[in-house]
Amino acid sequence: MTYCVGMIVEKGLVLMSDTRTNSGVDNISVFRKMFHWQVPGERIITVMTAGNLATTQAVVSQLEERTKEPDQRDNVLLQSPTMFQVASEIGKLVRETISERQRANGERGKGRFTASIIVAGQIAGMEPRLFMVYPEGNFIEASADTPFFQIGETKYGRPIILRGYDRSMSMEDAVKLLTVSFDSTLKANLSVGLPLDLMVIERDKFEVTHQRRIAHDDPYFLAISTSWGDALRTAFHSLPDYSFFSDYDGE
Amino acid sequence: MTYCVGMIVEKGLVLMSDTRTNSGVDNISVFRKMFHWQVPGERIITVMTAGNLATTQAVVSQLEERTKEPDQRDNVLLQSPTMFQVASEIGKLVRETISERQRANGERGKGRFTASIIVAGQIAGMEPRLFMVYPEGNFIEASADTPFFQIGETKYGRPIILRGYDRSMSMEDAVKLLTVSFDSTLKANLSVGLPLDLMVIERDKFEVTHQRRIAHDDPYFLAISTSWGDALRTAFHSLPDYSFFSDYDGE
Repeated sequence: MTYCVGMIVEKGLVLMSDTRTNSGVDNISVFRKMFHWQVPGERIITVMTAGNLATTQAVVSQLEERTKEPDQRDNVLLQSPTMFQVASEIGKLVRETISERQRANGERGKGRFTASIIVAGQIAGMEPRLFMVYPEGNFIEASADTPFFQIGETKYGRPIILRGYDRSMSMEDAVKLLTVSFDSTLKANLSVGLPLDLMVIERDKFEVTHQRRIAHDDPYFLAISTSWGDALRTAFHSLPDYSFFSDYDGE
Repeated sequence: MTYCVGMIVEKGLVLMSDTRTNSGVDNISVFRKMFHWQVPGERIITVMTAGNLATTQAVVSQLEERTKEPDQRDNVLLQSPTMFQVASEIGKLVRETISERQRANGERGKGRFTASIIVAGQIAGMEPRLFMVYPEGNFIEASADTPFFQIGETKYGRPIILRGYDRSMSMEDAVKLLTVSFDSTLKANLSVGLPLDLMVIERDKFEVTHQRRIAHDDPYFLAISTSWGDALRTAFHSLPDYSFFSDYDGE
C-alpha cells in the first residue's frame, strides 16, 4: 500500500508520502514515491505515485527519458507551458504505460497495472496548482471545496484533515496536520511505513522551500505521535458527557 | 455499506450500529442491523450484522425460526449453555445460508452473499463475551489486547477508538467514544447513515440497561458532532509546532 497527500493552502503547496512498498506482508521494501523537477525561478513540479511500482517507475523513467543518452534527454514537464498541460502529459504517459502492459499480458494481467498520481507545482506567472491523475489518464484539479488529494490508504488519515484544514493556515501548521494524518494511518495499516518524504513549496518561489526525510527516530514525528494521543484523549474528555437518565439538554 | 462497533469494557458491553443499506447510491433504505434476545435475569444476547442484507436477514429469521408457527418456534440462542456455543450456532447458520445461496446461483453468484456478524452478550454465571463471526462461519473472541470489533466501513472511525479506549472507562464514556467514531465515519462515507442504534449492557444485569435510536435531530449527537470539530482543532493546535529552520529539540 501507500499513503500520499498533496494539499494546497494560501501560502503554497505541502506534500507528504510514505516509502513502503510491499508484495504480501513478508516482502517489504523502501522506495521513494515523491519526485520533483525544477527550473529555479521559473517552475517547480512534484509528483507522488501510488499503485503498481513497476508501472509508476516506468512512468517516471519515461518522463525523464531514461531510455535515451543523458545528453539527449528532454523532460517534457520542463517544456509544458501550463500545469494543466503537465497533468495532461503525465496522464497520457500513465494511460499508455498501463494499456501497453495490459496488451502484452492479455486478460491474465488485466487490472493489475494501476497507478494514481498526484501532481503539484507552479509555473511563473500562474497560480500554484494541484491535480490528481487517474489510471485512465484523466485528471481532476483541487479547488476551494476540495483543497487536498490523497492516494493509497486514504481513510484512516482523512477525518483529521477534514476537521483541521484551513486555507489560511501557515505552512508549518500544514506540515503538522499532515504529520498527524500520517501518524493515524501508520498506526492502523502496516503496509504504510516510515520513512516519510516531506516537501514544502512556497507560492511564487519556484523552488523547494523545505524538504526532509522523516525517519523512525525523527524527534518531531515522535513528539507528534506521542502528544497526539494525549491531545486526543483531552479533546475526548472535553466533550459533553452522555447520560442514560435524561435527554441531553445542551447543559 | 454499514458501520457497527461492539466494545467490551470492565463494566459491560456497548454496541452501536447504523441503519443504512444501499444498492448503489440511488437506492437507500433504513434497516435495523441490531437485534437482541433476552431471558431477564439469565441471559442477554445481541447481534449486529454487516454484508448482503438478504443473507443477514435470512440468518436472523432462521435464528428466530420464523418458518415455523409462532408457538412452535424455539430460538436456539436461548438454549445454548455458553456464549461460545451461541457464536458457534450463529456461525453455522451464516455458513449454511451463504453456501446454500451460492449453490443455488452457481458461479454467477459467487462471493456476493457475504455476512459478518458481531455477537455480544452474557449468560448467568459467566463473563460478558464479544465475538466476531466471519462469512465462513468461524469466529474470534475479543480479548484485553483487542477489546472491540468493527464491521463494515471500519477505517474512518478506528483511530479515535484506538486512542480513546480504556478498559476502565464508564459506560457513558464508552457511548461518547462510539458516538465520536460514528460521527467521523458519517462525515466521510455517505453509505453509512443515521439513524443509529445504541445498546448498553451492564455486566451481571442480564437485560438491556439502555437503548436508544439516535436520529438526525438527536441533541446529544449534534452536540458531539459540533464540539468534536472544535475539540480536534484545539487538540491540533496544542501539538508542538513544526519549524523549517531548526531540528525539533523537544522544547
